[in-house]
Amino acid sequence: MKLHWSPRSPFVRKVMVAAHELGLADRIQTTRTLVGAAIVAPQLLPDNPLNKIPTLVLEDGTVLYDSYVIIEYLDSLAGGRLIPREGPARFTELRRHALGNGFLDMLIQYRMERERTPPSQPMMDAFAKKFDSTLTAIDQEIEAINADPPGIAQISLAIAGDYLDFRFADLGWRERAPRYSAWQERFRQRPSMVATPVVDG
Amino acid sequence: MKLHWSPRSPFVRKVMVAAHELGLADRIQTTRTLVGAAIVAPQLLPDNPLNKIPTLVLEDGTVLYDSYVIIEYLDSLAGGRLIPREGPARFTELRRHALGNGFLDMLIQYRMERERTPPSQPMMDAFAKKFDSTLTAIDQEIEAINADPPGIAQISLAIAGDYLDFRFADLGWRERAPRYSAWQERFRQRPSMVATPVVDG
Repeated sequence: MKLHWSPRSPFVRKVMVAAHELGLADRIQTTRTLVGAAIVAPQLLPDNPLNKIPTLVLEDGTVLYDSYVIIEYLDSLAGGRLIPREGPARFTELRRHALGNGFLDMLIQYRMERERTPPSQPMMDAFAKKFDSTLTAIDQEIEAINADPPGIAQISLAIAGDYLDFRFADLGWRERAPRYSAWQERFRQRPSMVATPVVDG
Repeated sequence: MKLHWSPRSPFVRKVMVAAHELGLADRIQTTRTLVGAAIVAPQLLPDNPLNKIPTLVLEDGTVLYDSYVIIEYLDSLAGGRLIPREGPARFTELRRHALGNGFLDMLIQYRMERERTPPSQPMMDAFAKKFDSTLTAIDQEIEAINADPPGIAQISLAIAGDYLDFRFADLGWRERAPRYSAWQERFRQRPSMVATPVVDG
């Protein structure tokens, strides 16, 4: 399987951490694909016209995106360990994944806005409120989330913590969300996280 | 079930069209919730700290988001008609849904950028390329998509067409993607689409 990949994308990292957790990492060949809000990768468009990574191409040419779809596919190959198959446990996991994934989406938009000259003050004010409400909600729920086996929600929330350290060190998230921080310090020591470092290159 | 709702959000509309297709629309009570890149809805944050709609609150207080998670839940109540349960058909449907949903995401970002003073020219150039590649890809695949029963992918692609008419009439998408346009003209006549008009209010 070929994965359009970048070492800086937290959404790509979700797929790689999931692959390591599932014992499938050695079946994925990564190819460096640089995309961004102002950067189109021509070699990606035939596989994914949206110009987004991660995008996975299977041996038979089947293409899968976005990160959720790829992880559900990998999980199906491994017998279903990261996403419960049905019932309330499934929808709880999917909602918590949407929380972690939506937080990542928000952070990427927040960073883009912050780097504009000038940023929109009404948008920056809204980001500050949403950042606070989301960080607080994760801090309040993290112990319940931790009671379940590691799955797609925990992976996304752990990656969000590393992304905060990487891009938002100034916001003091570890002091503001001490339970989330303590949980994330433990989760980030898993081999799947250690094997997929975030590098700015 | 209570749905945080707006008549202008194409993601909310996905949920409402799905509910109509599944015969569940009369079980959903909508509550108007206004959100935006610079607009935070305080009453939404306890249910969804990300400040995003749609957000569904079940009778027992369980909260579900985003639109995909809500639709998978509604589909599970109705026996699974909009998303195949497993196998290649499932992953094809999910990838095509990610295409339609990602197109909507792109269009919303494109519109926000276009309305800035001034917009970023490198971003506007990238949007124009991604718009073209995505529209072309949908036009090329729509007949294969139409061969399957109406599901979450078709719903998303049909809503994207109406959103294009609503916000991007100047881009001439119907001339540029005649097969997609012809398919969308038919799909938009389904009762589920007629019952959920897009209104600017």
